[in-house]
Amino acid sequence: MPEAPFTGSHMLADLHGCTRLNDVEHIRNALLNTVKAAGATLLDLKIHHFGPEGGVTGVALLAESHISIHTWPERDYAAVDIFLCGATHDLDGALSRLKRDLGAVRAATRIIRRGYGCNPSD
Amino acid sequence: MPEAPFTGSHMLADLHGCTRLNDVEHIRNALLNTVKAAGATLLDLKIHHFGPEGGVTGVALLAESHISIHTWPERDYAAVDIFLCGATHDLDGALSRLKRDLGAVRAATRIIRRGYGCNPSD
Repeated sequence: MPEAPFTGSHMLADLHGCTRLNDVEHIRNALLNTVKAAGATLLDLKIHHFGPEGGVTGVALLAESHISIHTWPERDYAAVDIFLCGATHDLDGALSRLKRDLGAVRAATRIIRRGYGCNPSD
Repeated sequence: MPEAPFTGSHMLADLHGCTRLNDVEHIRNALLNTVKAAGATLLDLKIHHFGPEGGVTGVALLAESHISIHTWPERDYAAVDIFLCGATHDLDGALSRLKRDLGAVRAATRIIRRGYGCNPSD
């Protein structure tokens, strides 16, 4: 059998015009909803709040890799990455859910193939 | 003052020809060394081992964003991302340290600017 052409898809998404980015419980729930929408298996979730009015950093460790979010509430901006390996996943569904939960007005995204069968410098 | 042109630098690195990728303590130490080499501030570290001969998934949460690693020992391959925000960080130093610790023969990297001042789709 030929080698699989790549291991996974890594989406980087910059979300603009978001709301409640200093609300740590809101971000935690948004991450959990995104994992579910991705069809991924959650191993662990870590979240850190940079003070009551500050941003939030969160990472969901997945059997399929990870989803991370870093928020700048003062800019209504969140930097997200969704890295999913394996055949069964839904990158677009995950992004849609996260955009909805965060109230994003605009998303700038790119998807990069990762893995032993491809060169990310291509 | 003009708006900062970007928030941070996100390096994606595919490391090939690595060794000991099923050794969870080795990967934990490599992550910690990489955080130090980056000049970053560690908030938390989560690591998961997919069985004695299996791969490892690890994420270091940083005050500056995160560093993640996912390993495929059967392919001697590791997918890494190093996302550092703020003025004081050392992406190249972090990558060099990680390559050395993992014994990587080849690294394919790309760096993407993230933030409210740039569009990753450009």
